Amino acid sequence: MTQLMTRRVAIAGATGYSGAELAAILARHPHAEIVSLFSSEGGKTVPFHKLHPALAGLRGREARPFSLDALLESGADTVFLATPAETSAELGARLLEEGKTVIDVSAAFRLRDPETFKQWYGFTHPAPNLLAQAVYGLTEWCQEELTGARLVANPGCYPTAVLLPLKPLSSLVNFSLPVICDAKSGVSGAGKKSDLAFSFSELSENFKAYGVAGHRHEPEMRQELGLCGGVPFSFVAHLLPIVRGMLATIHVTFKKAVEASEIENLYAAAYENEPFVTVLPPGETPDVRSVARTPRAAIGFCLLSRGTRGVLICTIDNLLKGAASQAVQNFNRVFGFEHSEGLL
Amino acid sequence: MTQLMTRRVAIAGATGYSGAELAAILARHPHAEIVSLFSSEGGKTVPFHKLHPALAGLRGREARPFSLDALLESGADTVFLATPAETSAELGARLLEEGKTVIDVSAAFRLRDPETFKQWYGFTHPAPNLLAQAVYGLTEWCQEELTGARLVANPGCYPTAVLLPLKPLSSLVNFSLPVICDAKSGVSGAGKKSDLAFSFSELSENFKAYGVAGHRHEPEMRQELGLCGGVPFSFVAHLLPIVRGMLATIHVTFKKAVEASEIENLYAAAYENEPFVTVLPPGETPDVRSVARTPRAAIGFCLLSRGTRGVLICTIDNLLKGAASQAVQNFNRVFGFEHSEGLL
Amino acid sequence: MTQLMTRRVAIAGATGYSGAELAAILARHPHAEIVSLFSSEGGKTVPFHKLHPALAGLRGREARPFSLDALLESGADTVFLATPAETSAELGARLLEEGKTVIDVSAAFRLRDPETFKQWYGFTHPAPNLLAQAVYGLTEWCQEELTGARLVANPGCYPTAVLLPLKPLSSLVNFSLPVICDAKSGVSGAGKKSDLAFSFSELSENFKAYGVAGHRHEPEMRQELGLCGGVPFSFVAHLLPIVRGMLATIHVTFKKAVEASEIENLYAAAYENEPFVTVLPPGETPDVRSVARTPRAAIGFCLLSRGTRGVLICTIDNLLKGAASQAVQNFNRVFGFEHSEGLL
Amino acid sequence: MTQLMTRRVAIAGATGYSGAELAAILARHPHAEIVSLFSSEGGKTVPFHKLHPALAGLRGREARPFSLDALLESGADTVFLATPAETSAELGARLLEEGKTVIDVSAAFRLRDPETFKQWYGFTHPAPNLLAQAVYGLTEWCQEELTGARLVANPGCYPTAVLLPLKPLSSLVNFSLPVICDAKSGVSGAGKKSDLAFSFSELSENFKAYGVAGHRHEPEMRQELGLCGGVPFSFVAHLLPIVRGMLATIHVTFKKAVEASEIENLYAAAYENEPFVTVLPPGETPDVRSVARTPRAAIGFCLLSRGTRGVLICTIDNLLKGAASQAVQNFNRVFGFEHSEGLL
Repeated sequence: MTQLMTRRVAIAGATGYSGAELAAILARHPHAEIVSLFSSEGGKTVPFHKLHPALAGLRGREARPFSLDALLESGADTVFLATPAETSAELGARLLEEGKTVIDVSAAFRLRDPETFKQWYGFTHPAPNLLAQAVYGLTEWCQEELTGARLVANPGCYPTAVLLPLKPLSSLVNFSLPVICDAKSGVSGAGKKSDLAFSFSELSENFKAYGVAGHRHEPEMRQELGLCGGVPFSFVAHLLPIVRGMLATIHVTFKKAVEASEIENLYAAAYENEPFVTVLPPGETPDVRSVARTPRAAIGFCLLSRGTRGVLICTIDNLLKGAASQAVQNFNRVFGFEHSEGLL
Repeated sequence: MTQLMTRRVAIAGATGYSGAELAAILARHPHAEIVSLFSSEGGKTVPFHKLHPALAGLRGREARPFSLDALLESGADTVFLATPAETSAELGARLLEEGKTVIDVSAAFRLRDPETFKQWYGFTHPAPNLLAQAVYGLTEWCQEELTGARLVANPGCYPTAVLLPLKPLSSLVNFSLPVICDAKSGVSGAGKKSDLAFSFSELSENFKAYGVAGHRHEPEMRQELGLCGGVPFSFVAHLLPIVRGMLATIHVTFKKAVEASEIENLYAAAYENEPFVTVLPPGETPDVRSVARTPRAAIGFCLLSRGTRGVLICTIDNLLKGAASQAVQNFNRVFGFEHSEGLL
Repeated sequence: MTQLMTRRVAIAGATGYSGAELAAILARHPHAEIVSLFSSEGGKTVPFHKLHPALAGLRGREARPFSLDALLESGADTVFLATPAETSAELGARLLEEGKTVIDVSAAFRLRDPETFKQWYGFTHPAPNLLAQAVYGLTEWCQEELTGARLVANPGCYPTAVLLPLKPLSSLVNFSLPVICDAKSGVSGAGKKSDLAFSFSELSENFKAYGVAGHRHEPEMRQELGLCGGVPFSFVAHLLPIVRGMLATIHVTFKKAVEASEIENLYAAAYENEPFVTVLPPGETPDVRSVARTPRAAIGFCLLSRGTRGVLICTIDNLLKGAASQAVQNFNRVFGFEHSEGLL
Repeated sequence: MTQLMTRRVAIAGATGYSGAELAAILARHPHAEIVSLFSSEGGKTVPFHKLHPALAGLRGREARPFSLDALLESGADTVFLATPAETSAELGARLLEEGKTVIDVSAAFRLRDPETFKQWYGFTHPAPNLLAQAVYGLTEWCQEELTGARLVANPGCYPTAVLLPLKPLSSLVNFSLPVICDAKSGVSGAGKKSDLAFSFSELSENFKAYGVAGHRHEPEMRQELGLCGGVPFSFVAHLLPIVRGMLATIHVTFKKAVEASEIENLYAAAYENEPFVTVLPPGETPDVRSVARTPRAAIGFCLLSRGTRGVLICTIDNLLKGAASQAVQNFNRVFGFEHSEGLL
């Protein structure tokens, strides 16, 4: 079975927070051979351990300034893009032409509609025809489409934390009444940035909402839930004074009163055999620490008002299930490796 | 005008987090003379600066183990209770009999209905007749009732952060559709506690919801908003890895589409002349740091879906506007002092 | 007594962390009238509350881009410089020529020797003759020199935390044996910076030494202790994951075994009547929280090896006693106001 | 080779912070089979994932209340003790009688002299004869003694961080002049505790020294460095507002001026082939993050005063190299497994 041979992988943007996690996972993946790593930081070749000394598995490796030629020469057959959306959009198209498999961690291929894309990302997509073709890689929900896929759009961290708990219950939830996703993210979600707004002195002992009037991740959630613009679905993001982790609190009304067991059954049907989604017993809710630095999502729920309303809580590590480890789940599915390969 | 003479004040529970802030404020209040301070920590007399060295204004003072006799002998005419609800409930009644003015920072006198009280606090109120008599001291909303009041129930921190932004808009909000209060508090809200669940090692770099299925502060909010049990009003509390501060994100649907100016006008009518409530321009939302260690609340709002829905955000210091400084606002109103006396 | 009239003050660099604290203190100082505030952030006039909303006393004020003309036109008679050393060095000389009193919070006038200055700050001092003339404003140690001074060099935060505990004991300490100052500072000490190295994601749950082989503050300490280059005096700085506060641990050997009472007596002689230096009983050591957000230093000490060696610990708020509040102590002394005016 | 067969291991105290890390490592160790886990928290059997949900490898396992009978019945041949020193001292002796191999993470068997032990731990050692027999398991320094050892005393976290950088240089350091170990630890070093002093509200944004006049770990360091009581060796511990990690700053004077290359050579001789000790180039110093959540120590050094003095900096994860992972290094050595087995 040729799919099961080891893949030669390259990472563009390997020194950012998500990229480095990705590099660390792939470095110990039994079916991945890292053939080139490209830096997301300026124009110099840097030994990896200078930037990420705790990632011991990357000792001895270097990240080079990106060049397409270098990438092509490295002989990679699979390229992970942990680059800004604009870079990924250009590069993704080019790499597909060269016959590479592309797993993009940016937002470049997540939205299907080029108009919506332009509205939220501020530029015209250079390869709009690829938008319909990309597999939206919320792994647990697209396993068949992933097999043999050429272009995978890894979901955003917020959409991952919102869609995982909501999708299994979509038949129960009354979407004509407000569905509120109140989400909170650690600071690493903003990336590796020289920015006063993300400095320790500004964020320690602080907390705030941001992007209240509109966040780029909301259209992605609406798309994947199949909700049109008129549906009263709200997403509000907040910035937590923690580095890693994200928690979404989702407030829903059900079409009719439900029992906890109905919810449990739907979650079991969706995730019972999934190694990276843990569902807690009714009434228990997970904390960020229970999943930080793990590839897992944890979901809890509480019923209110005699089962007519509910609170769903999902927590993930934004850099792992929200980015790097989900990208590797997708890699595993694309090539037919064990779902959890490299991730346990 | 005899009301304007200096009051002789005592504090029970003066060494807890809120009690100490209260003591520090009253120590520099021009119309308050602290005549006795009682400890919330065990049976020993302790110099205040051992427990709270940063509160320089309390240097030289001691907190004694509580005794009613000592309190009465001290000649206090006004007593602040920063004690557990059970203690406050017993003590409040007794002190009123002795002719004292009582400002209670606990939950003992916040709920009007003894049945609701028992349901949430787990004991039968020892002085249920006082529940109707106590003034619910959300200062900006009860200024007339406060004048000359004998018993003031200081609001909880969460209710303060939820009621301040919601009350002015209550005529606009459609309470038959879900109103979601997603609130986040710093750890000091739990009090000064020897409890693994509040240890640094458990909470740093962590975040979680708690009391999702029912929080004691919810009936207080419903009471003050005049909402019956059937109204789909949800309150969910979360624990932030910060010491001081609280932020409530309130998601509402309006009865009909509103303009930002309508909201601005209602807020101006409510708070224009209030020194401790700041309302931000439309679209701006406050962070915790903007009010931490201040007696102020800050409110911001954003309109969504062409004005049919809105997000209100309010932030306070849970120990000040959520407890100690609001108690002093109430003290000022009860005795006719300047509203901001001792607080600027 | 003309000195006691209110001073017209200006601040250059008023929107940085130290500058803003300085502005907040001076705004409530009974003998200071702020006539102009200049921004340390770019070229726009900004309302102060946008940058520092928690500093309520600055509401309504603006910070303008700096210009010498604007400063001179504002009629300030006293100018606080919270600007980079290079700016302060140029500006200080110019303002003195114009007859202004200058209190500089930067390092521009702290070192007496122009050669040492150049070696550590990397540029030739533009007004070397002023170096000998400036008063080194470690307030408790230069009260007479301060009276009527025209140019005050406010000490660095680290030197303040090291000199306060060491100077009173200098007759006891054996400086021919290693004296080790192991100091730890909060992140605000680095200033308001867009710099990845000071981002929340890099510093939370982290800790490190920096400048181990040589820190600019060491020559300042040696100068004020009268130690020549050959003395084995070491200063090592570390970066704490806190915003405000600094703690210095100083390890000394005594010339001969001492009793705790000798130390107590020397400290009492130095600080007994000083409102902003607290000395703890023998064996007790202060934590950062006991002085954070206060203008006070706290000093503790422990004797080791039967009194032959000792550990001195001093903690301050780096932005207050380490910068802004000490500048106001100096202002008070220069003009003959009460030492603690504006600071309690 | 019978040593290479899989060991049947038990852990007493498996739910504390170090114990849980130990359980997680051993759960994935190819030559360890965990046959029983005993709780350090009260008298109930608890599923491990309730206490440590992030440690996915322990899913499905339970920790039981300790009983010697249960331990013996489980058929363990090797017992890890992560229990308080008093418990370990009693239990260790008993388990040795039963023929078990004992690796103790507590302080029970670290000091060789029963008098010194009693002085620092406050009780008479119940099995003083074992003190001389136990191997002090600073792995890199006792590899031969470890082979086949029956009782291993795992070093304390502070001694590990101090001895690793100091021991290789002991021939160069002048111990007749003060050697200062100024060390800083994360809060998890205090264990899993319901104690106000370790609460988030008391420690966030705080920092302090503790045990300045004498810390239990100092005699352990003196013993392993061969220093008698008269040597001017100081150890001062501080509490960092981080959960995991420790950094020791060690200030030394050399017997004569040294070159960086001499230090490098000594470190290379000691650690060149050691997988868990990284030495940085001269002048570079490690931060806590570079080793947190890894089994590695990182060492850096700077020379001062033309090589006559030096600063050595060592950082470790207090729960791993300072406890659990070093215990597994020792386990590997005792039974002849690969040094890094289970740890990469």
